[in-house]
Amino acid sequence: MEGKRILDAVTSPADLKLLTNEELGILADEIRGEIIDVTSRTGGHVASSLGAVEIILAVHSMIDCPHDRFVFDVGHQAYAHKLVTGRLKEFATLRQYGGLSGFPKPSESPCDVHPSGHASDSLSVAYGLAMARDMAGGDEKVVALIGDAALSGGMAFEALNSIGQTQTPMVIILNDNEMSISRNVGALMKHLGALRTSSQYRETRDTLQARLEHTGPAGKALVNLGRNVKESMKQFVIPRTMIFEQLGILCTAPVDGHDIGALREILGTALSANVPVLVHVVTRKGAGYLPAERNSEKFHGVSAFDPLTGEMKKKAGGAPSYTDVFGQALVREARADERIVAITAAMKGGTGLGAFAKEFPKRFIDAGIAEEHAVGMASGLAVGGRKPVCAIYSTFLQRAVDQMIIDCALPNLDVVFAIDRAGIVGEDGPTHHGMFDLVYTRMVPNMRVLAPSDEAELASALHTALALGGPFAIRYPRGSAVGVPVPDEPEVFEVGRAVVRREGADAAILAFGSMVKRALDAAELLAADGVQARVVDMRWAKPLDAEAIRAAAATGCVVTVEDGVIEGGAGEGVLAQLSRDGLTPRTATLGIDDRYVHQGKPDLLMHDLGLDAEGIAAAVRAHRG
Amino acid sequence: MEGKRILDAVTSPADLKLLTNEELGILADEIRGEIIDVTSRTGGHVASSLGAVEIILAVHSMIDCPHDRFVFDVGHQAYAHKLVTGRLKEFATLRQYGGLSGFPKPSESPCDVHPSGHASDSLSVAYGLAMARDMAGGDEKVVALIGDAALSGGMAFEALNSIGQTQTPMVIILNDNEMSISRNVGALMKHLGALRTSSQYRETRDTLQARLEHTGPAGKALVNLGRNVKESMKQFVIPRTMIFEQLGILCTAPVDGHDIGALREILGTALSANVPVLVHVVTRKGAGYLPAERNSEKFHGVSAFDPLTGEMKKKAGGAPSYTDVFGQALVREARADERIVAITAAMKGGTGLGAFAKEFPKRFIDAGIAEEHAVGMASGLAVGGRKPVCAIYSTFLQRAVDQMIIDCALPNLDVVFAIDRAGIVGEDGPTHHGMFDLVYTRMVPNMRVLAPSDEAELASALHTALALGGPFAIRYPRGSAVGVPVPDEPEVFEVGRAVVRREGADAAILAFGSMVKRALDAAELLAADGVQARVVDMRWAKPLDAEAIRAAAATGCVVTVEDGVIEGGAGEGVLAQLSRDGLTPRTATLGIDDRYVHQGKPDLLMHDLGLDAEGIAAAVRAHRG
Repeated sequence: MEGKRILDAVTSPADLKLLTNEELGILADEIRGEIIDVTSRTGGHVASSLGAVEIILAVHSMIDCPHDRFVFDVGHQAYAHKLVTGRLKEFATLRQYGGLSGFPKPSESPCDVHPSGHASDSLSVAYGLAMARDMAGGDEKVVALIGDAALSGGMAFEALNSIGQTQTPMVIILNDNEMSISRNVGALMKHLGALRTSSQYRETRDTLQARLEHTGPAGKALVNLGRNVKESMKQFVIPRTMIFEQLGILCTAPVDGHDIGALREILGTALSANVPVLVHVVTRKGAGYLPAERNSEKFHGVSAFDPLTGEMKKKAGGAPSYTDVFGQALVREARADERIVAITAAMKGGTGLGAFAKEFPKRFIDAGIAEEHAVGMASGLAVGGRKPVCAIYSTFLQRAVDQMIIDCALPNLDVVFAIDRAGIVGEDGPTHHGMFDLVYTRMVPNMRVLAPSDEAELASALHTALALGGPFAIRYPRGSAVGVPVPDEPEVFEVGRAVVRREGADAAILAFGSMVKRALDAAELLAADGVQARVVDMRWAKPLDAEAIRAAAATGCVVTVEDGVIEGGAGEGVLAQLSRDGLTPRTATLGIDDRYVHQGKPDLLMHDLGLDAEGIAAAVRAHRG
Repeated sequence: MEGKRILDAVTSPADLKLLTNEELGILADEIRGEIIDVTSRTGGHVASSLGAVEIILAVHSMIDCPHDRFVFDVGHQAYAHKLVTGRLKEFATLRQYGGLSGFPKPSESPCDVHPSGHASDSLSVAYGLAMARDMAGGDEKVVALIGDAALSGGMAFEALNSIGQTQTPMVIILNDNEMSISRNVGALMKHLGALRTSSQYRETRDTLQARLEHTGPAGKALVNLGRNVKESMKQFVIPRTMIFEQLGILCTAPVDGHDIGALREILGTALSANVPVLVHVVTRKGAGYLPAERNSEKFHGVSAFDPLTGEMKKKAGGAPSYTDVFGQALVREARADERIVAITAAMKGGTGLGAFAKEFPKRFIDAGIAEEHAVGMASGLAVGGRKPVCAIYSTFLQRAVDQMIIDCALPNLDVVFAIDRAGIVGEDGPTHHGMFDLVYTRMVPNMRVLAPSDEAELASALHTALALGGPFAIRYPRGSAVGVPVPDEPEVFEVGRAVVRREGADAAILAFGSMVKRALDAAELLAADGVQARVVDMRWAKPLDAEAIRAAAATGCVVTVEDGVIEGGAGEGVLAQLSRDGLTPRTATLGIDDRYVHQGKPDLLMHDLGLDAEGIAAAVRAHRG
């Protein structure tokens, strides 16, 4: 197809306005081909991006970005948006070091409004943009695209509540693909399902108009749906029980999200309304690519695959992932203690809870994309005598910091936070790195924080947390573990006791979690120079091992290493302990130095951050003085 | 009335079961008298507590606490609950140092399920309790009491979404008082208002039963409403458009929240249902006490007042509050820059934004109890060219840590966080102290953090943040400022530059925000002993003034003082800076030492924490060696 594609001629979204519906349909196919071609090599979020192609083309053919604002929720459905906003040539660098982000990114293009990445924030951002427009007397259109699953996040509801009250014009496209990453949860999903299939669309445009004029928040002013009100009202056959309508937001009947003509027609009307309108679009995840349609969960986020068959490229055997080890360890614990409950926030597979859910379906709860609720619910379960384990990614647990503080740690409840994807995650980039968890857990009174350094440590860390009770955080990274055997009978760690992994009297490297291995490698490099560095696996980020820190100080040089931000991190905690003991060795705190971290292979990023073996060794050399 | 009250005979909630509706009504009056009597001396949350008396009596007369679970949202309506669960004698100590908490507190009574204090979490906690019951095969009832305003918090919606799906039996009492602390906001409130007055309650019990059997999540199984289904169904005349019903939660028509007989009847039915039921109760804030009914916003949280007239006892003149100074300073800034927008999360009065809202109504946005949305919206406003200032209490901004990180700081937007109630707040206790903000702001890349030490500094801090742009946090305490004049023309601070407030060569006290004054007092005490301590107003918690820290190190003794947790706080940041410079003075980091702080007068609490002048002076003496 090369060289003859419409896609190659599209240099900005304005070009889409020149195309017929038929041509836009051809373009959609070309975009799908491009997405499959590139992601089969780079990996990426394939299923949701394929599902949203027609929506994105329809929107861009009806508005003028960057003057108008197109806000994406989560953003991993935005590949088509990247391709039609001048980034076709760079698209092959998707998610690579130095390449295009897998999410909208304002520094890449003025058409990327916002660094999407965490679910459910798009409506608040879009509402802010609409309010800014109203205050400035501007005329720009504001469109938000949000998936059905992201609507379960409370933040989206908070925004709908404001939007319905204020009635500022904006268009919310609900991309209802009947399935988020994992199985849908929640009553709202059932409600949407009923809408898709029901016979409730029975009000006529006339009764609708009458209702709009006489009742409801939207009805105070006569709704102006553009040039030809009577005509356009045909499209607004509202389900009388639709939840959004109760919040004062005008809704459309479901429209086929792969029919560009239908989409453009309804969008045209919605965009010319003087009130907020929700356009209910039904799509298929993975649309147009059979392997992804058939297994959209597998194709949510993938690594490289064979574009013809959809077969994932096998990774070299190697060690199991920390995620899998956690999942298996939790199943073992749950067999021995029926009080254990596992909680996920719409990430059953991602957090390794598949086997648990299968074996203990009644003790497994998926809260939906709703971390606040997940942690609040854990509090109630613990009060009720259960032992909840919340498995949530580090970056998403940022949503529930207050609930950790107030609902779990203040009453000192038996809640375990299994913090997956801690540290640098790689290709997903700055919105997904787990950079802050060591800070936001260690600041919380009553909280104890474990940073296992390998899969055996992870199993024992979980066992320890469940055995000792009280609020516990266990943080572990994305990807393959070290490759050591996981004990059948994990141990109960002594609280606040570190482990010396390598002896040495010239300097001490105090390492947290996955940094222990890198510290040991650094010690090898240093030994080659005749410097004998002690390597301590701190194991506990809180409480810290004061004795191990004192012993480290005796070497005269203490270097801490963590894969999180330095400000507020565990290294600063080590400095505070030295201060309390009145010890004054030379010190250095290695970690992420007050910056967001870009995307790429973790090893490359760690090198940039000075957190690989060479960087650590260099820091030790520099600080031995 | 003394000695002859029913109240004096009530030693546990079981006693309420022996009373008639009429006697419960008399008891309600006695409880109101007790609440007014005590709070007129102690201060407290009067209006909401008076409004919920009959609800609480009705619930306790129908369930068996602590076996059954009664969960309060926010909790400042729980005084009647305290009075009938064995705490009448201690009630006069309400909110005092060492006395009864103004909120439910599990360590006080087994009837207090959960440390309520932050809005919108009750449904998640109650859902967790209900799930724990189901897993254990228990039979306890679970009742949650939530106000209309707290429903605007997204976390409550997340919980409703789970409850509606799971259909586990529990009773949600919606205390609809048509008014939260401040004016209600949001489309949901309008929806509730329409329900209260509308003619939509037109379905009969028969059509309802038919619907339950044939449609909707609740309808899969026949709903069993207890002993006499046909009879009890009378009470369930459901508004066909009620939003909760769309989520699969059975709802009642509004019931008078001051009619104990009516409340008990509908609660009896709701408690015997095998599905979740929302009981819609309409109350008046301040009910039974005219001054509070007439001015329920003033009587939301009050200090001492005259019980006869409702007149607030005047405080001695003195300095204006930081809150007022902030509000006035923001108005001045807004007159000069039309891009400035003020955002509150349902705390217009509490955050000092009343004058701003009056002068600039179109540039003032109340997001409701919805901090996540407030901060997300700020992001959109900033992208749209506005300069949003989010005024949120330190403890409540914990709800929006993720939005600060992802939505505001990652794209480096011009958003100012005006963090009120930072540090120890006093009588509201552990759920309300602002202990964590120095940590959760300084860990965020791109964020700059100012801690003004008096009202003049606060005005200049705000001016600096608005002049320089980028994400800024300004934290200031509750209560009276120092009493210095506020400049008409505030200055733009040099970034990361501290101010020496007192010279001294024997030691250096590096103080943040309101601790500067205490540090100066400590220096006076030390001077009396012949120790000359330098006092540095650090002004910037981030970036720190490296030069001032080096100069401090030259004294040989550096003591940092902040009114937040030590773990991850600004003091540890100072230690890290010393480490980077290879400096090794004696050091101490003073702050809150890894514990929750109880309630009481701030001066008393600061003394306990070693953060008064004496404590600081003692620490300096101890560390000079």
